[in-house]
Amino acid sequence: MKLLTLVSVAMVCTLHSSAQDSLTFRKISDEILLHGTCYDNLRVLCKKVGNRLSGTPAAAKAVEWGAKAMKEAGADNVWLQPADVPYWHRGEESLMLKTGNGNYKAVNAMSLGNSEGTNGRPLEAAIVMVHNYDEFKALPDEAIKGKIIFFNYRFRQDFVFTFNGYSDAVKYRWAGPSVAAKKGAAGVIIRSMSTGVDDFPHTGSMHYNDSFKKIPEMALGNYTADSLEKYCSRGTVYAKMRSECHLTTKMVRSYNVIGEIKGSLYPDRIITVGGHLDSWDVGEGAHDDGAGCVQSIEVLRAFKATGIRPKYTVRAVLFMNEENGLKGGEAYADSAASKHEYHVLAIETDAGGFSPRGIGMEMSEVKKDRIRTYKDLFLPYGVYDFNQDEGGADISPLKRKLDVPVAGLLPDSQRYFDVHHTNNDVFETVNHRELKLGAVALTQFIYLISQHELL
Amino acid sequence: MKLLTLVSVAMVCTLHSSAQDSLTFRKISDEILLHGTCYDNLRVLCKKVGNRLSGTPAAAKAVEWGAKAMKEAGADNVWLQPADVPYWHRGEESLMLKTGNGNYKAVNAMSLGNSEGTNGRPLEAAIVMVHNYDEFKALPDEAIKGKIIFFNYRFRQDFVFTFNGYSDAVKYRWAGPSVAAKKGAAGVIIRSMSTGVDDFPHTGSMHYNDSFKKIPEMALGNYTADSLEKYCSRGTVYAKMRSECHLTTKMVRSYNVIGEIKGSLYPDRIITVGGHLDSWDVGEGAHDDGAGCVQSIEVLRAFKATGIRPKYTVRAVLFMNEENGLKGGEAYADSAASKHEYHVLAIETDAGGFSPRGIGMEMSEVKKDRIRTYKDLFLPYGVYDFNQDEGGADISPLKRKLDVPVAGLLPDSQRYFDVHHTNNDVFETVNHRELKLGAVALTQFIYLISQHELL
Repeated sequence: MKLLTLVSVAMVCTLHSSAQDSLTFRKISDEILLHGTCYDNLRVLCKKVGNRLSGTPAAAKAVEWGAKAMKEAGADNVWLQPADVPYWHRGEESLMLKTGNGNYKAVNAMSLGNSEGTNGRPLEAAIVMVHNYDEFKALPDEAIKGKIIFFNYRFRQDFVFTFNGYSDAVKYRWAGPSVAAKKGAAGVIIRSMSTGVDDFPHTGSMHYNDSFKKIPEMALGNYTADSLEKYCSRGTVYAKMRSECHLTTKMVRSYNVIGEIKGSLYPDRIITVGGHLDSWDVGEGAHDDGAGCVQSIEVLRAFKATGIRPKYTVRAVLFMNEENGLKGGEAYADSAASKHEYHVLAIETDAGGFSPRGIGMEMSEVKKDRIRTYKDLFLPYGVYDFNQDEGGADISPLKRKLDVPVAGLLPDSQRYFDVHHTNNDVFETVNHRELKLGAVALTQFIYLISQHELL
Repeated sequence: MKLLTLVSVAMVCTLHSSAQDSLTFRKISDEILLHGTCYDNLRVLCKKVGNRLSGTPAAAKAVEWGAKAMKEAGADNVWLQPADVPYWHRGEESLMLKTGNGNYKAVNAMSLGNSEGTNGRPLEAAIVMVHNYDEFKALPDEAIKGKIIFFNYRFRQDFVFTFNGYSDAVKYRWAGPSVAAKKGAAGVIIRSMSTGVDDFPHTGSMHYNDSFKKIPEMALGNYTADSLEKYCSRGTVYAKMRSECHLTTKMVRSYNVIGEIKGSLYPDRIITVGGHLDSWDVGEGAHDDGAGCVQSIEVLRAFKATGIRPKYTVRAVLFMNEENGLKGGEAYADSAASKHEYHVLAIETDAGGFSPRGIGMEMSEVKKDRIRTYKDLFLPYGVYDFNQDEGGADISPLKRKLDVPVAGLLPDSQRYFDVHHTNNDVFETVNHRELKLGAVALTQFIYLISQHELL
């Protein structure tokens, strides 16, 4: 009898709690879908600030914008956290191609981030096309020496989750120049990491192995890459690269922007939600990662506007320099370590402002399972997948240095690599409802962790 | 011992079957994501045919296109099924507004489908704004008589599934003119059924109650509706409507386009998959429902290209006249009845070419549960929701007249009512991967039903 009573009481409590959570989830959703400011904030960031590479005046303007937006959202405290960042400069760039005895024609191309250029002087050479590293390695050094290597590796469209296609292809962008320089190549052209049926070249960071010459690297959009592939299969193609890009050695003082709501019961337990404020120097950094910034700010606003008081401190962080250095993420973790802050969770939103589908987690299975008992609450909001491992670049130092459990919002991935790192990553490609639903899922998740002290 | 053996054998069979299904699912996905032609087909339909209202020469051209595309997909048989359709003509239309003593200014507006116009003559009257039917009903007849009623009902953005917002708001478009005419109104203006942050007016079908005068109805996009709302709250606003639209009484001969693959084991058991070929007379009918047409054709192509031979006959149907008459759907069901065809399932795709999230079903719970035992197979493809009731307009006569179990593809709904029935429903708003994944889910679902004889 006693056991039965206990079970009944437990059931009633669970039902009550679940019904209350369900109502709170709805309250959060209604607030953001009806009154959310994240879409308007994104418009301002994209149109008034624009793209904002670390170390540029635009990035400094973005910091000002972020602090203002945090205050408008109702954050209890807003501050800037210093982070010294590298500065890469693109300058003028051009790529011209010619076949046989034809004339050079300019094509649409873009230097990769951190790449060294040609000092503005023309670099002219025959192109050697390979489809992958295996083909490249099979070629003798004399076939490579002095040539421009075209790594014509196609983004695999058969992966349903497009980030798997990106992970698969990105090694050509990241390491291609040093792999090629090792055998004496003069320059590298890559097919962009792109799912797009278009001609937008995609920039993104690359890396030199200091043992080899730092040769320039440029990306082509899919249409131009298709044309070059066709030309190369018919005979020798020549390229004339010219670029001024350069990674300066001086660091520039910049900042993470931080806003927080103090926890009502455990102010010393901190949940960080963030995206990155910097972008590449093209487009408007709308999906990457303006979306994540305005969603993180929206989390604070939603708590304030609904009057839902989280037990834990909730901190929104706009990290600086995710794209080419991660200095903001490192500075945040170092500060947390030196102040002995207790971070129960850090969650990142840096996969685009698309309809949310899940939240990935990197933490112990015990913790994951505890959170997963609540997953059905998210179903009415289209969020069903809690089985992926996911964190985020900016919060990876928190995990690495302080063992903080991390998580990442998982939006629908189909369109991300159409616009990622391109001139087409603009405000108009973001849908207001999809963006807001991402903020809804983040706020609900943070509410849940804090309310039930799940971490 | 014997029981244990039986259980083991059953388990091995289940595991084997599941592993085989999983491989087949992957084969279907790879085929469509890597070699699918649905996106290219959609480009041709949108750009070479364009919008295609029932009864127009463009609709006839679309029928030709459909038959050709079915043959290219490898259908065993392709035929046209006659359906006589109504023909509504838009003609020239304009709406001008003025406040107080100001001058008339033209605004962006669009007559609703099936609406009668003003015979091209100006209809000038003061506007009475109401926010819903309750407000309208509270007004005395003399406040309505001779006026143009502005039903300023906002699409509810708090519904996560946007079709719920559409269902909630569409009664103003559908019945507004007769409701208003009953009290003597001269015309109706509505705020579009639109989630858009823009000024696209949305057309769509309306209906007259023959007991009342057939007064004209026009829709505004959200920006113009916002302006009109502001003007009306300040004082009297006058409208001058002019339109030539008219529903002709003569029916036009048109066709459903049908292609099929004969079942390898049960050719008499038919699974129909379809979308509708007609569109409204604006935009390109890309999401509504060019997407559904090319996905249905892709299902046939995928079976042929992979060599997966369905046990049941699979029939792709491009229905004519979904938008303003449903004559194609009726003709299809009547033909099925008269030929005593055995339809085990009809599934429609008419909710846009967005990332699929689920398949809704209208059939007995026993049948639904049988299908749901396989639902985890769909998870790697982002398809998780098998709990909604869903069929489709074109296949509703099959269900009504012949009790055929029906289903409907459930894509992500966030962007649909931004473009639905507008000049912005164009090819460029469709993402190739999202479109293809919809075709993947349909093909996998049909394979499963046929392979395991689930219906």
